[in-house]
Amino acid sequence: MNSYGSSIKFSIFGQSHSPEIGMTLEGIPAGKKIDLDELQKFMNRRAPGKSYSTSRKEPDVPEFVSGLVGGVTCGAPITAIIRNKDTRPSDYSNLADIPRPGHADYTAAVKYGDARDKTGGGQFSGRLTAPLCIAGGILIQLLRENGMEIRARALSIGNVKDSGAFPENEICGDIPAVSRESAGEMLEVIERARSEGDSVGGVIECVITGVKPGAGGPMFGGLENRIASAVFGIPAVKGIEFGRGFESACIKGSEMNDPFYFDEEGNVKTKTNNCGGILGGIADGMPITFRVAIKPTPSIAKPQQSVDLKTGENVTMTVNGRHDPCIVPRAVPAVEAAAAIAIYDAIAAG
Amino acid sequence: MNSYGSSIKFSIFGQSHSPEIGMTLEGIPAGKKIDLDELQKFMNRRAPGKSYSTSRKEPDVPEFVSGLVGGVTCGAPITAIIRNKDTRPSDYSNLADIPRPGHADYTAAVKYGDARDKTGGGQFSGRLTAPLCIAGGILIQLLRENGMEIRARALSIGNVKDSGAFPENEICGDIPAVSRESAGEMLEVIERARSEGDSVGGVIECVITGVKPGAGGPMFGGLENRIASAVFGIPAVKGIEFGRGFESACIKGSEMNDPFYFDEEGNVKTKTNNCGGILGGIADGMPITFRVAIKPTPSIAKPQQSVDLKTGENVTMTVNGRHDPCIVPRAVPAVEAAAAIAIYDAIAAG
Amino acid sequence: MNSYGSSIKFSIFGQSHSPEIGMTLEGIPAGKKIDLDELQKFMNRRAPGKSYSTSRKEPDVPEFVSGLVGGVTCGAPITAIIRNKDTRPSDYSNLADIPRPGHADYTAAVKYGDARDKTGGGQFSGRLTAPLCIAGGILIQLLRENGMEIRARALSIGNVKDSGAFPENEICGDIPAVSRESAGEMLEVIERARSEGDSVGGVIECVITGVKPGAGGPMFGGLENRIASAVFGIPAVKGIEFGRGFESACIKGSEMNDPFYFDEEGNVKTKTNNCGGILGGIADGMPITFRVAIKPTPSIAKPQQSVDLKTGENVTMTVNGRHDPCIVPRAVPAVEAAAAIAIYDAIAAG
Amino acid sequence: MNSYGSSIKFSIFGQSHSPEIGMTLEGIPAGKKIDLDELQKFMNRRAPGKSYSTSRKEPDVPEFVSGLVGGVTCGAPITAIIRNKDTRPSDYSNLADIPRPGHADYTAAVKYGDARDKTGGGQFSGRLTAPLCIAGGILIQLLRENGMEIRARALSIGNVKDSGAFPENEICGDIPAVSRESAGEMLEVIERARSEGDSVGGVIECVITGVKPGAGGPMFGGLENRIASAVFGIPAVKGIEFGRGFESACIKGSEMNDPFYFDEEGNVKTKTNNCGGILGGIADGMPITFRVAIKPTPSIAKPQQSVDLKTGENVTMTVNGRHDPCIVPRAVPAVEAAAAIAIYDAIAAG
Repeated sequence: MNSYGSSIKFSIFGQSHSPEIGMTLEGIPAGKKIDLDELQKFMNRRAPGKSYSTSRKEPDVPEFVSGLVGGVTCGAPITAIIRNKDTRPSDYSNLADIPRPGHADYTAAVKYGDARDKTGGGQFSGRLTAPLCIAGGILIQLLRENGMEIRARALSIGNVKDSGAFPENEICGDIPAVSRESAGEMLEVIERARSEGDSVGGVIECVITGVKPGAGGPMFGGLENRIASAVFGIPAVKGIEFGRGFESACIKGSEMNDPFYFDEEGNVKTKTNNCGGILGGIADGMPITFRVAIKPTPSIAKPQQSVDLKTGENVTMTVNGRHDPCIVPRAVPAVEAAAAIAIYDAIAAG
Repeated sequence: MNSYGSSIKFSIFGQSHSPEIGMTLEGIPAGKKIDLDELQKFMNRRAPGKSYSTSRKEPDVPEFVSGLVGGVTCGAPITAIIRNKDTRPSDYSNLADIPRPGHADYTAAVKYGDARDKTGGGQFSGRLTAPLCIAGGILIQLLRENGMEIRARALSIGNVKDSGAFPENEICGDIPAVSRESAGEMLEVIERARSEGDSVGGVIECVITGVKPGAGGPMFGGLENRIASAVFGIPAVKGIEFGRGFESACIKGSEMNDPFYFDEEGNVKTKTNNCGGILGGIADGMPITFRVAIKPTPSIAKPQQSVDLKTGENVTMTVNGRHDPCIVPRAVPAVEAAAAIAIYDAIAAG
Repeated sequence: MNSYGSSIKFSIFGQSHSPEIGMTLEGIPAGKKIDLDELQKFMNRRAPGKSYSTSRKEPDVPEFVSGLVGGVTCGAPITAIIRNKDTRPSDYSNLADIPRPGHADYTAAVKYGDARDKTGGGQFSGRLTAPLCIAGGILIQLLRENGMEIRARALSIGNVKDSGAFPENEICGDIPAVSRESAGEMLEVIERARSEGDSVGGVIECVITGVKPGAGGPMFGGLENRIASAVFGIPAVKGIEFGRGFESACIKGSEMNDPFYFDEEGNVKTKTNNCGGILGGIADGMPITFRVAIKPTPSIAKPQQSVDLKTGENVTMTVNGRHDPCIVPRAVPAVEAAAAIAIYDAIAAG
Repeated sequence: MNSYGSSIKFSIFGQSHSPEIGMTLEGIPAGKKIDLDELQKFMNRRAPGKSYSTSRKEPDVPEFVSGLVGGVTCGAPITAIIRNKDTRPSDYSNLADIPRPGHADYTAAVKYGDARDKTGGGQFSGRLTAPLCIAGGILIQLLRENGMEIRARALSIGNVKDSGAFPENEICGDIPAVSRESAGEMLEVIERARSEGDSVGGVIECVITGVKPGAGGPMFGGLENRIASAVFGIPAVKGIEFGRGFESACIKGSEMNDPFYFDEEGNVKTKTNNCGGILGGIADGMPITFRVAIKPTPSIAKPQQSVDLKTGENVTMTVNGRHDPCIVPRAVPAVEAAAAIAIYDAIAAG
């Protein structure tokens, strides 16, 4: 389903080359002023047009169809759309029946048959993270009002790791890393991949501060379940881990357990945060931390082996179109957006 | 919420020391014969009583309250319960107000206050994976009827990795690894942890074969979202990755993309399976593979730092009760169960 | 689905003659004391054993399996069961393939095939309103704490109408009418129907007081939608109307519209309550009133025309078993229970 | 919530005077050709511009934003919008703080406060039945492909009852009655109400033919629950009854029960259809019949008593704006649409 949420309802519509793409967000209280400039700045972090991204130019300006009166929520569902302007369906005509490896072309063909939208990935396009960012950008504002901040960075791109502490340090530039040096190396890795007709992935780290203890719940209503369920909605995500994640499999309980203590104001804190701020699916008041694995963009210029679904023959194909050699920088705000939706929904559930 | 599912509805009830624990499974077609012996065998894989597990003895025999007539589903919701027999709430009396590090005691205290069930982890207990296994055990039978198999193993415990190929090889014994040698080393690691009053975690690998291409869907209805959402319902899970997962962040697109080809019967296959059988959230017909990080059991005998929520003082505490030094072996069937629920639900959604 | 609720999750399990029937109620805050005697009194209003009801004897004592610790909610799902004791499946053996007119036997046979539970109506039995009353009885207590009362009466049975004002007057006896005279006539109508081997229906009126204005929502989240959706879960309900209901179709707008005014405390009230306390799906603070049409019990002793699904022949059949000549009195608490579930869920949704 | 559906997801967005109103429909299979002319004809039945309706002129032409490629569903969510053109928010400026009796103005003020959309009823406007009709119009086409027809008529307006049989006879003209004479009298009743500055309600009858036995389910998943839940989403609906509905409360079981028989083709039929084609919440294969009570339009020209929420004073007010003296004719396609959504969803649930 294209929908998410238990207390709020969030749904995305649109395809890569449909007239519009957009989203509906239900369950937001009336009377909330949305800062549209702030929202646009958030959208711009995801928007294409950077050196390392696709040459498809889309301004990605949300237009609000309903739910806002004078920039303030009125209690009705908020629907916003983005017009698709720079579409070039012809780029895809030769691929209609030859699925691109690593893409959803083949599985879409099986599931939807010949009626599927064959241009630009249809509903599976990374472009659909734009409406995700509209909702996320709105909810980040509402969470901030209540003292919560959501920030993510590129922890690594290819084999280059960002070297500074996070979220203590600020993002340094277009590449969302905190170390300027690491960012420079990451850009090199991306450029090298592009020049080789190849692509590269990375890991995104996200930290949510200010969540009061008690948010979330046991079993399937846990924060991990909710965040994972939202984050896997971003194309190219292949893994997620909380706190020390996979590393926790290799250490002892005495090392992993976070000791409790009372801080000076009498609040319960933990000395370490190996659990990533979540115990039993519920926030413990420490920062919520998680990392997301992003696979390399499947659209690469190199010739690849595939099949022709019409003729039944194995073929060699090349992907045209305009593509990012690395999606990680643009996926960073999408991860923040997904986290915002999950956290807002969990808190609203009480 | 203690519920899961879009097409089916699965919910769990009970606490570690409540009179009964159980589950309700709605949406299963009428006329399905459930092999109760087979189900019991599945339950036994999770049940305590092994050398490496807690000394709490529970036979874990499900009793069917409704939904089965003569062992056959009648179309009504299936409810089964397990009686809690070997409860010793007194083991926990000293811990009522001193949260165990790494456990949900503190977050439960914040969320539910003094009315929370304070014995044995209450509703956060790993014991609640028993009802998960009832549902999973039933659905594994139904999936098998349609050619699907779900198998998991301990890929690693602590720093010991299982050495053989999977699922090509069978599990060799009580420790669910394929290499008898690895299993032996794993058991040593567990015993050493126990003797040190400590615990150890591990990684579980799960492989689902026979899923026809087309199951799943885009966005939040993807197989990754659904499986992650179910698997994080198992206590102690801190991460999940599909296919090459976090490794995919370090490799090139040309390496990651799985080339398509027609096999001899004219079926579309991929030469590699780096995507773990899922493209765009939808099964591509190859085995679905994922790995789950299990943290070390938080209940350890070593003294730990914690807080006394009543007195407001920092304290040193030790955990009594009966605990597993490593939960990984017993979590293996729970992961299979969660996978079965997610896959069955996704396929039923069409 | 056997489930109801957006903010809470309520689900029913069991069949007429399964070992147990029961319910799970999720989403109730921790720390609520449940008065079990009060609950039993509520259950007894639905229980059989009155002069006008079936001779099947069931004490209908709920046993709490989980969710209560010392009679207080602990935040975990509340599950309670009732054991089926006085089952006589043999009463139904001759009917296995001959559907009783007015019952769900035929539609169950189509939907579930031969595997359906053929005894006593299976999951379609009116007996399943017992678990509904467990949940309703609990929620009525929680609503009362917040100043809300839910009361229903038999407004009519057959052609006999209850003559007094409601809810101003109290129920006078076993027949839940406010006029002792009307109650006497109703009992006569029921006895006459029984002696003729026939049955009779009626109308139940329900009034909910104390609901603060603002509960509910527009469109499909309206109070009418929610209440109707719960009430039609009671077998034999064939209609529901709010406020003046069907009568409103015959009057003018100037007659139907309820004029607003400020009362002495400065609260907004309406002079009349033709809308039944609901405007735009949202409570306006006046009593919420609705009426429910209950069809005559389909189980009658008179010979009836039916079909033999095995032989393909038209047949004349008679219904054995133990049946109520009028279900209305026992359906009154079931309607209150359904209303409680709907109102509690709507209020919890904010 | 503005959303409906278990198998499909349908949601409505927009306010009376927002830039656009629209809907999203998820879960429709790919490859379905939508006849847009047929859809527009359906929309026109609801559109204003008839003698008896508001003078607000809106062409109500749906524009498809996503989900259709060349007029064929592609498997992605279908989103369509309608631009609001003839808005006159100034008509409502004097009413901002004086709630119109019978409208949701007061309850909206309580629920959403000052931020609510105060013009034209905001999200509570009957105008939102236009997007309902987009979804309904599409689903009616898909149901028709499978042999199902949904037809409704004005059974009565005020005290005038339509005299002919239905659905055997066709609608005779703008007033959706089968008797031309009744339609004429209905129009008179409406004109008389308008000339008196008043309004009038009515009853809509809906018949769904061709639904195979087995659709629907027990308890809260019954066809009555589903249809009622959708139909109460239409503003002004105050009651719903199935089959003989409230009349069934006055008759005997022997009269109410529909005797089964085998017809000449060996299909099970019932001699009467008092249950309205539904037994135990499940279709029995006979026509599904229900009636809906529509209250008189609350917007009337006559002076009315209300309150000034700002000043705290009781006031006399008159409603300006452009209004229908009777909404029943335009509500007929809305009822068909709601029925289509409910039935399609129930069938898709299996």
